[in-house]
Amino acid sequence: MSSPVKDEQSDAMLEALIAKEILPQSGNWEGTEEFLNRVVQVLLKYIKDQNDRDQKILEFHHPDKMQMLIDLSIPEQPENLLKLVKSCEDVLRLGVRTGHPRFFNQISCGLDLVSMAGEWLTATANTNMFTYEIAPVFILMEKSVMTRMWEAVGWDPEKADGIFAPGGAIANLYAMNAARHQLWPRSKHLGMKDIPTLCCFTSEDESHYSIKSASAVLGIGADHCFNIPTDKNGKMIPEALEAKIIESKKEGLTPFFVCCTAGTTVYGAFDPLERVANICERHKLWFHVDAAWGGGMLLSPEHRYKLAGVERANSVTWNPHKLMGALLQCSACLFRQDGLLFQCNQASADYLFQQDKPYDVSYDTGDKAIQCGRHNDVFKLWLMWKSKGMEGYRQQINKLMDLSAYFTRRIKETEGFELIIENPEFLNICFWYVPSKIRNLEPAEIKARLEKIAPKIKAGMMQRGTTMVGYQPDKQRPNFFRMIISNQAITREDLDFLIKEIVDIGESLE
Amino acid sequence: MSSPVKDEQSDAMLEALIAKEILPQSGNWEGTEEFLNRVVQVLLKYIKDQNDRDQKILEFHHPDKMQMLIDLSIPEQPENLLKLVKSCEDVLRLGVRTGHPRFFNQISCGLDLVSMAGEWLTATANTNMFTYEIAPVFILMEKSVMTRMWEAVGWDPEKADGIFAPGGAIANLYAMNAARHQLWPRSKHLGMKDIPTLCCFTSEDESHYSIKSASAVLGIGADHCFNIPTDKNGKMIPEALEAKIIESKKEGLTPFFVCCTAGTTVYGAFDPLERVANICERHKLWFHVDAAWGGGMLLSPEHRYKLAGVERANSVTWNPHKLMGALLQCSACLFRQDGLLFQCNQASADYLFQQDKPYDVSYDTGDKAIQCGRHNDVFKLWLMWKSKGMEGYRQQINKLMDLSAYFTRRIKETEGFELIIENPEFLNICFWYVPSKIRNLEPAEIKARLEKIAPKIKAGMMQRGTTMVGYQPDKQRPNFFRMIISNQAITREDLDFLIKEIVDIGESLE
Repeated sequence: MSSPVKDEQSDAMLEALIAKEILPQSGNWEGTEEFLNRVVQVLLKYIKDQNDRDQKILEFHHPDKMQMLIDLSIPEQPENLLKLVKSCEDVLRLGVRTGHPRFFNQISCGLDLVSMAGEWLTATANTNMFTYEIAPVFILMEKSVMTRMWEAVGWDPEKADGIFAPGGAIANLYAMNAARHQLWPRSKHLGMKDIPTLCCFTSEDESHYSIKSASAVLGIGADHCFNIPTDKNGKMIPEALEAKIIESKKEGLTPFFVCCTAGTTVYGAFDPLERVANICERHKLWFHVDAAWGGGMLLSPEHRYKLAGVERANSVTWNPHKLMGALLQCSACLFRQDGLLFQCNQASADYLFQQDKPYDVSYDTGDKAIQCGRHNDVFKLWLMWKSKGMEGYRQQINKLMDLSAYFTRRIKETEGFELIIENPEFLNICFWYVPSKIRNLEPAEIKARLEKIAPKIKAGMMQRGTTMVGYQPDKQRPNFFRMIISNQAITREDLDFLIKEIVDIGESLE
Repeated sequence: MSSPVKDEQSDAMLEALIAKEILPQSGNWEGTEEFLNRVVQVLLKYIKDQNDRDQKILEFHHPDKMQMLIDLSIPEQPENLLKLVKSCEDVLRLGVRTGHPRFFNQISCGLDLVSMAGEWLTATANTNMFTYEIAPVFILMEKSVMTRMWEAVGWDPEKADGIFAPGGAIANLYAMNAARHQLWPRSKHLGMKDIPTLCCFTSEDESHYSIKSASAVLGIGADHCFNIPTDKNGKMIPEALEAKIIESKKEGLTPFFVCCTAGTTVYGAFDPLERVANICERHKLWFHVDAAWGGGMLLSPEHRYKLAGVERANSVTWNPHKLMGALLQCSACLFRQDGLLFQCNQASADYLFQQDKPYDVSYDTGDKAIQCGRHNDVFKLWLMWKSKGMEGYRQQINKLMDLSAYFTRRIKETEGFELIIENPEFLNICFWYVPSKIRNLEPAEIKARLEKIAPKIKAGMMQRGTTMVGYQPDKQRPNFFRMIISNQAITREDLDFLIKEIVDIGESLE
């Protein structure tokens, strides 16, 4: 660490400078380096603190209060570099430490530092993924990384295709759009009025809402996205799917797309891919697997059987920013068949994708994308994957699955906890905590009370700042917690801590 | 800089470590810090070199060769941290320095170091923009930054709305989707079959291809996006627009959306917003302004008149990653009227957007987005904007406009150069270079030869690695250069250099 004298000098230097007095507008390298080094110091301290379990996850403030704690306004005159460094400190101090080992709130948790270093480099290289011309290494890297992903899915990399999209919802939209294009290429030019009334299928509640949303955006209509009932473990019931397909045809609709989910958002359920693939073959439907969350399981030879049949999919969404722990955003939409993405999205913008360039323009990816500018999401994944190797991921995922089993056992044996799904098959564990005060009430009364228990416990956690875990209701059930074990930093002690904290807050409720 | 002895020690330390032996999986802070500091050293050296005009912009290699220069494969076993640092060096060495002051190739050029520092922090904070719960400061920051943008457009911030989207193409898609929803809300549920056959309008060639692409994706059909002729400066001809609107109605179509471009991609033209706004009012059409590139001009009181009438738009796309110089991606889609974005995209995912949280959930933005996970694109913009203030942007944009005028003058007075548009009104300057050897040929012959001149000069630049500028043909014209002056680092000398380099390479062609 720097000595106090040096810090004072540094403060004085940065206080005397504004942005246009450092690179790239001025040649002042010393000031440039000092500014960036100071920001890095702030970031390193944040990382260190975040990994200290005695530090809080957040200081909770309501929006009104928050606005008094930090000046978010855009000033008339430039602020000096020291003030910017202080702003960085403030923003981090008032934020939520999503990489804290006891933050279990989202599917994307944790902070892999190699991936983070990769994102720092990505920012510094600041290029756009549309052509080999301006992103030669990153374009080739996408292909190399996707090759590993295609292999993991079980496809022939020579024939497969794919693109990194800004998040799983857009990836699913890419897939549905390509499916429509393959079946009805003229819709690209003439729109939906010119083709039959399409409909698609995904599991009830359990599937991600982005399938319905893609249906709405694409002009198919959210109501033409049918929800197929699920079994008690949250898995799509294939018989119900086939019945609905047949029924929709009778009603004059044209089924075209089935989405199975591999790792549902709430329950972590895996739909029965083989059986759905059979149905899709029988009815000649596009088979999409939304493995945004569960895709990482393909890297574990021990657990990948849960996705058996995924190789029969026409398209797969797989978000490395979820189970693989890459930084947000990192989401791939993969296609078994090459060429379609280009045909579907190609817009022939001469000013971008000239054919008379001094290299093989088949490497240019711009015309495959719905986006024009496309962020480089691959480098942070590539660097992280190199840092672990295939073997490292295998271990990491197996370890998380072991922790999930451990947590489930602990929930089962701890008084007051009740699992929603008796034997979770993934890293989502859904449960209620029933405080002792209400345990002896009538079941209907308990259910009514439970609706308010999880929100109150959650509010307590946020006030204490010690841990965070999400909750939600479903159609039949009052609010329950959804625990997610995806941060590689998690230990058994962290899980024990969460259980203790829930009991502690839950028992203290009025 | 570190001494050689220290470097050797550092190398040895990092060579002995793999990722799981540092944070967050292990408590080894010394190794963690050393790794991150070494990566930062690599990045700082890159930044310093990039700003040194004697350094090359790129080492050009064809894809086959490139693949031999760097090992892009994903290994079975983890690679040690030293190897990762070396990989970072390799990737940067083999890439294109898009922040080099003589890289004029794209609309997004340059590397603002405050914005970059902001992106480093964003990566470190690694959160998701869907709720106040997990991104409290950043959610409020979006509102604060958008308030400045709404004001710049000329809207009442109390009534306006908006969202940061992954790039301008998706922002335009947001706008068109919202426009459809406002006019035909039932299309969200029932799709396009249930409503009239829609059509939309944008300028011929000059407009961004994403409007046609959005039309295709939304199920309206690319052929129902009509291209309106432009004048010799690349501006949409309002009379032609109105004629086409009337014609399309006669043909049984339902016009609903007009996109004006403020700063076209190739010529930098500004469509006549006031006149188009009148037509939209008359015909009750949604008026969208794609100011992805030109939006930054709103920050210059001297130049904002080019967008006069923008305040009458229903929606505006404005990409701070273009003229404002924020890092990719940073793109906003702004709406004059609050509420619509939510109605249009809301999917009511209970597991994300619970209403019984311990704070005012109206701050949660998730249900306004088509995406689910949404990258934090605002912090890098906010920090950069603070570093310049309103006054700094005013100066920066005025300076770029002055440089554009200077470059235009120099092109006019230098033998062999011919402007495509005599008086460019923005930061795009389009021109041919006619080598002396062919200057005396017949006009038709010159035109035929010119098609190959720009690609050859460009190839020469890439081989030399000294500068880069884009080229393309248009319907009537053979390949011409499109110069972009958007990097704040550009000086007059850089522009003189480009002219000299083009002459030098152009004259040496066979």
